[in-house]
Amino acid sequence: MELPDLRGREAILKVHAKKIKTADDVDFHTVARMAAGASGAELANIINEAALRAVRGGRTVVTEADLEESIEVVIAGYQKKNAVLSDQEKRVVAYHEIGHALVAAMQSHSAPVQKITIIPRTSGARGYTMQVETGDKYLMTREELENKIATYTGGRAAEEVAFGQITTGASNDIGQATKLARAMIARYGMSEDFDMVAMETVQNQYLGGDASLTCSPATQQEIDRKVVELVKAQHAKARKILTDNRDKLDELAGFLYEKETITGEEFMEILTGGEQR
Amino acid sequence: MELPDLRGREAILKVHAKKIKTADDVDFHTVARMAAGASGAELANIINEAALRAVRGGRTVVTEADLEESIEVVIAGYQKKNAVLSDQEKRVVAYHEIGHALVAAMQSHSAPVQKITIIPRTSGARGYTMQVETGDKYLMTREELENKIATYTGGRAAEEVAFGQITTGASNDIGQATKLARAMIARYGMSEDFDMVAMETVQNQYLGGDASLTCSPATQQEIDRKVVELVKAQHAKARKILTDNRDKLDELAGFLYEKETITGEEFMEILTGGEQR
Amino acid sequence: MELPDLRGREAILKVHAKKIKTADDVDFHTVARMAAGASGAELANIINEAALRAVRGGRTVVTEADLEESIEVVIAGYQKKNAVLSDQEKRVVAYHEIGHALVAAMQSHSAPVQKITIIPRTSGARGYTMQVETGDKYLMTREELENKIATYTGGRAAEEVAFGQITTGASNDIGQATKLARAMIARYGMSEDFDMVAMETVQNQYLGGDASLTCSPATQQEIDRKVVELVKAQHAKARKILTDNRDKLDELAGFLYEKETITGEEFMEILTGGEQR
Amino acid sequence: MELPDLRGREAILKVHAKKIKTADDVDFHTVARMAAGASGAELANIINEAALRAVRGGRTVVTEADLEESIEVVIAGYQKKNAVLSDQEKRVVAYHEIGHALVAAMQSHSAPVQKITIIPRTSGARGYTMQVETGDKYLMTREELENKIATYTGGRAAEEVAFGQITTGASNDIGQATKLARAMIARYGMSEDFDMVAMETVQNQYLGGDASLTCSPATQQEIDRKVVELVKAQHAKARKILTDNRDKLDELAGFLYEKETITGEEFMEILTGGEQR
Amino acid sequence: MELPDLRGREAILKVHAKKIKTADDVDFHTVARMAAGASGAELANIINEAALRAVRGGRTVVTEADLEESIEVVIAGYQKKNAVLSDQEKRVVAYHEIGHALVAAMQSHSAPVQKITIIPRTSGARGYTMQVETGDKYLMTREELENKIATYTGGRAAEEVAFGQITTGASNDIGQATKLARAMIARYGMSEDFDMVAMETVQNQYLGGDASLTCSPATQQEIDRKVVELVKAQHAKARKILTDNRDKLDELAGFLYEKETITGEEFMEILTGGEQR
Amino acid sequence: MELPDLRGREAILKVHAKKIKTADDVDFHTVARMAAGASGAELANIINEAALRAVRGGRTVVTEADLEESIEVVIAGYQKKNAVLSDQEKRVVAYHEIGHALVAAMQSHSAPVQKITIIPRTSGARGYTMQVETGDKYLMTREELENKIATYTGGRAAEEVAFGQITTGASNDIGQATKLARAMIARYGMSEDFDMVAMETVQNQYLGGDASLTCSPATQQEIDRKVVELVKAQHAKARKILTDNRDKLDELAGFLYEKETITGEEFMEILTGGEQR
Repeated sequence: MELPDLRGREAILKVHAKKIKTADDVDFHTVARMAAGASGAELANIINEAALRAVRGGRTVVTEADLEESIEVVIAGYQKKNAVLSDQEKRVVAYHEIGHALVAAMQSHSAPVQKITIIPRTSGARGYTMQVETGDKYLMTREELENKIATYTGGRAAEEVAFGQITTGASNDIGQATKLARAMIARYGMSEDFDMVAMETVQNQYLGGDASLTCSPATQQEIDRKVVELVKAQHAKARKILTDNRDKLDELAGFLYEKETITGEEFMEILTGGEQR
Repeated sequence: MELPDLRGREAILKVHAKKIKTADDVDFHTVARMAAGASGAELANIINEAALRAVRGGRTVVTEADLEESIEVVIAGYQKKNAVLSDQEKRVVAYHEIGHALVAAMQSHSAPVQKITIIPRTSGARGYTMQVETGDKYLMTREELENKIATYTGGRAAEEVAFGQITTGASNDIGQATKLARAMIARYGMSEDFDMVAMETVQNQYLGGDASLTCSPATQQEIDRKVVELVKAQHAKARKILTDNRDKLDELAGFLYEKETITGEEFMEILTGGEQR
Repeated sequence: MELPDLRGREAILKVHAKKIKTADDVDFHTVARMAAGASGAELANIINEAALRAVRGGRTVVTEADLEESIEVVIAGYQKKNAVLSDQEKRVVAYHEIGHALVAAMQSHSAPVQKITIIPRTSGARGYTMQVETGDKYLMTREELENKIATYTGGRAAEEVAFGQITTGASNDIGQATKLARAMIARYGMSEDFDMVAMETVQNQYLGGDASLTCSPATQQEIDRKVVELVKAQHAKARKILTDNRDKLDELAGFLYEKETITGEEFMEILTGGEQR
Repeated sequence: MELPDLRGREAILKVHAKKIKTADDVDFHTVARMAAGASGAELANIINEAALRAVRGGRTVVTEADLEESIEVVIAGYQKKNAVLSDQEKRVVAYHEIGHALVAAMQSHSAPVQKITIIPRTSGARGYTMQVETGDKYLMTREELENKIATYTGGRAAEEVAFGQITTGASNDIGQATKLARAMIARYGMSEDFDMVAMETVQNQYLGGDASLTCSPATQQEIDRKVVELVKAQHAKARKILTDNRDKLDELAGFLYEKETITGEEFMEILTGGEQR
Repeated sequence: MELPDLRGREAILKVHAKKIKTADDVDFHTVARMAAGASGAELANIINEAALRAVRGGRTVVTEADLEESIEVVIAGYQKKNAVLSDQEKRVVAYHEIGHALVAAMQSHSAPVQKITIIPRTSGARGYTMQVETGDKYLMTREELENKIATYTGGRAAEEVAFGQITTGASNDIGQATKLARAMIARYGMSEDFDMVAMETVQNQYLGGDASLTCSPATQQEIDRKVVELVKAQHAKARKILTDNRDKLDELAGFLYEKETITGEEFMEILTGGEQR
Repeated sequence: MELPDLRGREAILKVHAKKIKTADDVDFHTVARMAAGASGAELANIINEAALRAVRGGRTVVTEADLEESIEVVIAGYQKKNAVLSDQEKRVVAYHEIGHALVAAMQSHSAPVQKITIIPRTSGARGYTMQVETGDKYLMTREELENKIATYTGGRAAEEVAFGQITTGASNDIGQATKLARAMIARYGMSEDFDMVAMETVQNQYLGGDASLTCSPATQQEIDRKVVELVKAQHAKARKILTDNRDKLDELAGFLYEKETITGEEFMEILTGGEQR
């Protein structure tokens, strides 16, 4: 089953929304954009969750805010309000998330940042940065993939720049960056040496499906080397971006630490020279 | 089960066509040629699909056009009219498809181009180039196989020549080119070094069936090297063909970008010096 | 279950033939010899098939010819009369089959050629060369096995000698030659270096059963090397035989191309200096 | 299922405690801290076990001590009072446990020691050292992970320092230290050379889930080397800590040997210069 | 289930023999010795088979000869009287079997030859040499194992000495010799280099059970090398024995070729200087 | 399920013994010591077996001797009185068993010898040496493990010293010595190079459970090398012990050959200078 694209998501949301009362200002196109990657079943869940939220809030109509929060609930679970991060952990998480956002923002072709939050979720996430594309993406260039890897490494890069030490907080980013880099080398023909030869086959065709090697151990080793080289270069780039923008990094992380959630607009305002708060 | 050959397909189509009314001009031989690779079940589907299409179109007889469109539906799914590629993506896809077609056309022994389209299909294809052989092919020479690999690489080669950058759009071509090149080296005895020794055995005997290695890791590495060498050479050839025919590439891609679908006749007309449109 | 030997096959054929009327001249010994490798069930099928063929031909007795044709049906399927090979493909297939036959005939210890045909069969075979041993073979010497490998390579060697190019038509020969060569090296103790040590074990004891390696990767590599060396030498020998007998190759291939089927007698007549036709 | 965090454990304990009568002084926050890593089902068990213990002790209310002992029962099984360690074994175990505790205490970022015991348990443990964090830990720095490895090696290091010989008593510690060190190298991106590339994937996401390698044998070897280097350095550090604090080691081990169980307070008192007993 | 030993076999045979009438001269001890390696079920079969044979022969009592022939039937199947080996094949088989027998006889510690036959059996055996131990063997020395390997290689060695060529007839011997040699190296600690370290583990504990490697590929390669060296040396010894006794080899093979079966007494008579026949 | 320890075994034996009448002198502590490694079910069997033995012997009470013999029956099966070892085999087995016992006795930390026997058992054992610890062992030092390996190699070492040749009789010892040595290197952190890093993980936690490798092939090779080195050194030590005590070896083996079973007291008496018998 292919996942629905942007228009498909909008259509599915509207179908399910017929069963509930929505506020006049609800913009399903925006909601569909934010719900990138959601399946049909998850889109139905988002509508239900939003309806429940409205009920809990004593409202008779579902608002845009209900829908947006319910996207986060479906993707990352409910807010885990009573999780108690130590102050130092909270500070590290704030820098980590700003690291992702700032590296993304400082590169071309990155999807705009929609929201950054350090309120833990029941999925186990200690925070996340939501980027939202303006439309569907069917093709990705090598440069866009490299930037995506750099963005994944941005969280740890921020820890390095700000604290000079690293934590287990980047585990998931490491997995994602590795998956993408391996695909570039072993499936998308994006290395000089392998040219247009696939060294892996994939069971599940979506980005990051399960890959199985079809090459010799010596070629596997070459893949390992190329993957490390690729990720290392993007990690270094991310670190440079953050070092070059240390002021913004500190300002944004401080703001996020305090507010716990910031919107894309707030993020851009500070980034584009908004004065010190 | 062996797939039906050309005569077989024509016979099967005619059997199923007895249940429907077809226009007088329907040429089942041509339909059978276009449906190369289809199984008996798929051929039955093609007739059903064409009948439904006629009904939807308010026609009482099934036309040649109904049959041709239904072949595409069975192979690649319905047109996905509301898929919104960005303008730049659409331009890349147009060059990509013309790349395949132009490399095929500029080599001897290639099957003629029947149709090129960049209307996305529900199968996930963002476009495709349909080549149709004039008869069944029982044997393929090394040169024909190499040309086929060059044709597979033609899509990315066009991206390189036109845009100087590469995308994930060639993933499937990479898989196909690799499969064919591995078969040449490891099963068809088409390398100097391995002579007439098979280094893989195949479960499913059709071209590109699942192969399992029966050789040592060191020999696997040699296979990897030879496959890369083989594909690299054809990729370079494809790039040269497109660079040498840059004018035609631009003209054809521009035409396809605008029209979204072009026929084999239109393709050949432009290719053989038809004046600028 | 061991397959029946020559006497066994003759006996089985006679048992089943009791249920049908056979012409006086039917020689079950010859039929049994031609049906080498057939199982008990296949021998029963051969009798049934021959009976049906006689009925279709309006005959009340089954003739030797009915039996011989039905052997081919059981082994390779029915003639696929409507398969349309291109003229060039037909020519390549003719040379390919004569290549096998001529290499076999020019070596000592080869079973005599009984029939060569290029009428495609429903099994997918584009043609074949039937060699029939005069008796059962219980032991094979190294030389006989090497000659058998040379015969397998004879098809492609003929393509090389006559057309200077190679095709996928030799895929099956490559698999068979490899299987035999691996068995010589890894199971029959026919290499200097491994002496009487088995490097593979076999599940199914018949010639070419499924083998699984029981040695180290480095030893596997040595096996690969020895197999290539062995096959390469026989392939070169086959090519030499055909080059040295180019006149006969051309004459026989031309004759087969025209007639589509030739008997062992016709083959030998041309081979032993029958004048130009 | 994610395990409950500190607040979650406290809440779950209180829910189950409603069914029993507890002494006024019971501090569920402390109990929850001690029960780190327990699942919901284990927390329910802890309450039941404590109730049974009170009954066996002829008490009508469950005390803090009942709850603390029942945590140990659920985690490590009942005390195995009749296990007869030889005197020398008992001495070795005492040094081993003090080794863990002393190395932990002498490093920064280590959770405080709560209790050390050398009374064997039915789980097979010959003794253990209970460390209790003051709050939940969501992130671990490289330094904290290294210290944890050093603490694991502290048991054997004490055997080396005190007896100049080593025993099988460290088997479990070796497994834990290896697991953590491999995760640092192959999943947490904590080696210079692999940067932010994952060389393993993990089925079960909790610390120390089952990992499967996705890299070449040569890269595996590099992982092995780095893991050994990492553990060796921490082991050496542990040995140095114990050598530098030989007096305390002897004093504490002697005390534990005699008393069989010592509390965190007793441990700290001796450690921080309490006079000789 | 352990197989019965000599006394056990004798007892089992006697139990089953109670149900039939046996000639007075039947020596169950001898029969039990000849049936070495037979299971309880096979011993029951031997008695039944002998009874049927007596009935077919019109005898009312079962003779020693009935029992001896029925052992062969149970082990190797019925005589396949109508198998037609070519004269050359029969000659090769005669030399092959005498090769085994002569190498065995010329070495110390070999079990005496009981019978040699070249009448094919339905098991597929083209002939065999029956050696019968005088008692059970519980231990085998390195020398005895080496001699056993030499005996296995004796068949092919005879082909080499007499005909200067080798055949597939030694396939089974190669498998047996390899199995024994691998066990000596990898399980019986009979190589200098591996000392008393097992490099394989065995599922089924009887001689030649299924072994699985538990060592590194590099060690596997060492095993391969040592196995080849070991077998090569014994093969050379076998060839030397036969070359040194060429007269006896020719005489015995000629006698066996003519008679098709010879007894241990006939074998020894010729071997120990019986005059030319 | 953990196996019962010494006290546990004694308790279990006493529970089951309540159902039978035992002689006054029965010492369950000694019986429990001899039954080291027995499960609860096996302990029940030992009591039943002893009761049956008393009945067969016409006794109304179960004696210590009944219990001791029944331990052997449960562990190694019934005596196989009619097994006929050749005189030479019997002599080899006698030296082999004394080899184990003498090497054990000449090293410190070895459990005392309780009984040595060369009466074959239905388990297939041709003899065995029973060593009985005075108490449970919870920890083993490197030295104790090395001594245990030396004891395993003592059987073959005795064959070498006494006969200058080796037999298959040490197969089982080789497997046990290898298992222990691999555990020392790969799981107990007892090699300099791997320090406290585990290179294997174990499914079943008891000594010698099934281990699976988690390291690279190169590291496996290092493990192989270290294991060989370790076993070789202990084997050499065993050989030295036996060579240095050749008189005692001959005397004890001669005595065992004659008596077939000797007690620990007899063994010690001869060992500690009892005069020649």
